[in-house]
Amino acid sequence: LAAGLVAHVGVVQDGQPYVLPVAYAPWRGGVVFHGSTASRLFKLLAAGAPTCVTITLLDGLLAARSAFESSMEYRCAMLMGTCERLAGADQDEALRAITDHLLPDRWMHIRPPSPQEHKATMVLHLRIDTWSLKVGEGFAEDSAADLDDYAGTWAGRVPLRTVPGVPEADLHARGLPVPQYVSEWGH
Amino acid sequence: LAAGLVAHVGVVQDGQPYVLPVAYAPWRGGVVFHGSTASRLFKLLAAGAPTCVTITLLDGLLAARSAFESSMEYRCAMLMGTCERLAGADQDEALRAITDHLLPDRWMHIRPPSPQEHKATMVLHLRIDTWSLKVGEGFAEDSAADLDDYAGTWAGRVPLRTVPGVPEADLHARGLPVPQYVSEWGH
Repeated sequence: LAAGLVAHVGVVQDGQPYVLPVAYAPWRGGVVFHGSTASRLFKLLAAGAPTCVTITLLDGLLAARSAFESSMEYRCAMLMGTCERLAGADQDEALRAITDHLLPDRWMHIRPPSPQEHKATMVLHLRIDTWSLKVGEGFAEDSAADLDDYAGTWAGRVPLRTVPGVPEADLHARGLPVPQYVSEWGH
Repeated sequence: LAAGLVAHVGVVQDGQPYVLPVAYAPWRGGVVFHGSTASRLFKLLAAGAPTCVTITLLDGLLAARSAFESSMEYRCAMLMGTCERLAGADQDEALRAITDHLLPDRWMHIRPPSPQEHKATMVLHLRIDTWSLKVGEGFAEDSAADLDDYAGTWAGRVPLRTVPGVPEADLHARGLPVPQYVSEWGH
């Protein structure tokens, strides 16, 4: 949970599932995320609809000698439960957690939400009822026959990771030095 | 759709949404993905349960001068529809599409699925009924007041991308050269 940036939130309306990407943060044993109070799906979530929040980290590609054994290397947390809408100090604390989860130390340098912005923002806390984790590890395992027949085929792992590029200041920040928490993001 | 590796599939069982990460490929105007024929959720999908497949690409972090305007830069496709299970030549073609979507040119070097493996693999084709796309662009927009009050705060964009590390051969491939389609993955 600490390593991810995007979570995918599943919710059902009239039998149809919807899967939404959100920024999230781990918070008080669950996760928090936010959206617009005007969103139909966020209203459903706030009303306590059954929810699944899945966080997936793709760590690499596993290239085996057969199509069947080839796969992705990933870590995945699937969290099931219901959401409660946060308010007051909890809402502020959760928004800070989300902001600083994406870009550590950012919150202290920016303007916190106004009362009007607080009203327009729905901050939800998923209380986890059940969860499952999947963690893939190591190389794919080919059969002895495939090892023989495809002895000339390279097989192994291509590690993948998310890296930052060069930060781009907006028009008004062009003269300012890039702060360390930005330039060293992810290190 | 061409740029993503992982899709998140939403499906409902007894009112509870589930969100699963899968490898996918664009295929015949929809997407294909696969799982185990033993999976409860894949059986539901194959039976035509309403499905949502969401593909999200995180392109960067947008650091604004207020918490409210700070966000992620992402591209997201939300595809709604129902799945059909593929068989025979379609199943083979879709598996090839998935394999080569993850690692282009890989299929021709590996063993295709045996009849037994075909039976154990459920390959699903999402036929898209409705869809929505979200594409964020450009910098966050701060108010004139925030530009004044936080003139000393750096703001802008931290681009993010997924990059491969050094490929790691498994025990049996240690003597083999790394093929170009592996060493140049993503370039």
